[in-house]
Amino acid sequence: MSDIQKSTIGLWVSNISGVLVRIGGVFSRRGHNIDSLNVATALDSKFAHMTITCKGPKDGLAQIIKQLDKLVDVIWVKDYSNSQECREAGRVIRESALIRLCADATNRNDLCLVFDTFRAQVVHMDDKTMTIHVNGDSSKIDKLESLIAASHNIIDAVRSGLMVLPEIKE
Amino acid sequence: MSDIQKSTIGLWVSNISGVLVRIGGVFSRRGHNIDSLNVATALDSKFAHMTITCKGPKDGLAQIIKQLDKLVDVIWVKDYSNSQECREAGRVIRESALIRLCADATNRNDLCLVFDTFRAQVVHMDDKTMTIHVNGDSSKIDKLESLIAASHNIIDAVRSGLMVLPEIKE
Repeated sequence: MSDIQKSTIGLWVSNISGVLVRIGGVFSRRGHNIDSLNVATALDSKFAHMTITCKGPKDGLAQIIKQLDKLVDVIWVKDYSNSQECREAGRVIRESALIRLCADATNRNDLCLVFDTFRAQVVHMDDKTMTIHVNGDSSKIDKLESLIAASHNIIDAVRSGLMVLPEIKE
Repeated sequence: MSDIQKSTIGLWVSNISGVLVRIGGVFSRRGHNIDSLNVATALDSKFAHMTITCKGPKDGLAQIIKQLDKLVDVIWVKDYSNSQECREAGRVIRESALIRLCADATNRNDLCLVFDTFRAQVVHMDDKTMTIHVNGDSSKIDKLESLIAASHNIIDAVRSGLMVLPEIKE
């Protein structure tokens, strides 16, 4: 039995119909669940950049990366899991989240202090709720969510999944 | 021939292996390409929130939404395309992007003025490049990209795809 490992994989793919199904298929055939995925058209609209985070046995993930690399529509695939290596190479890893919580006039001030500390922006407000947008690494967003949840009611939250900007090529 | 329309679709799905393939299949069977997609585990880890933007004939998209709604793993599906309605209902739509560009000591000052105007944060810098993180609606990010591209060389850019926080339920 190999250890369960959390992995981040980056892919540069052709921006055509059906690529997502073929990539998703590689994961689902091996019973791996994708924790988060984001894909958007690149500057050159012929391509798209995809970032996937998933959990599973270490060996299984190595196989998945090999299989992804064999797909015709995949130009390159990279394992971003080593976060130390990331920083050295100038790789940037960030996540975004929108969080809506119950807040009224009596506790808005206290909350704004928390939001300022985490550099979260208030993007919507009405008499009963506030909605914030926060950026950072996943653990920062986790901490903010649990800090808010400890004293307030989180109504809804959407996360972007990890965005990775690959390291600078020399 | 019906008009080509850009659409944004939100889905609330079971967080299990294979859901992505089934959802992607609905789009690829009809030859629709997904422009951007992001999915991440929700606060309740049994579910995941997915946002998809795609382009295609208006009729085709209505069919796709109906087919998505029939999938067992899809709890609900919503068409977020009407942006006017969004704002009235307290719906929040945002996107994030990481942009890396060529910049050295001679032009950093000029660039920082642009970044401040767009409220972009510098997240990485070395002697030849700068990397920024910007949030906002898609058109704001498009404008910043084209403004930078007009006078500087963009090395790489990653976008999160649209994140949508559904409207407040009464």
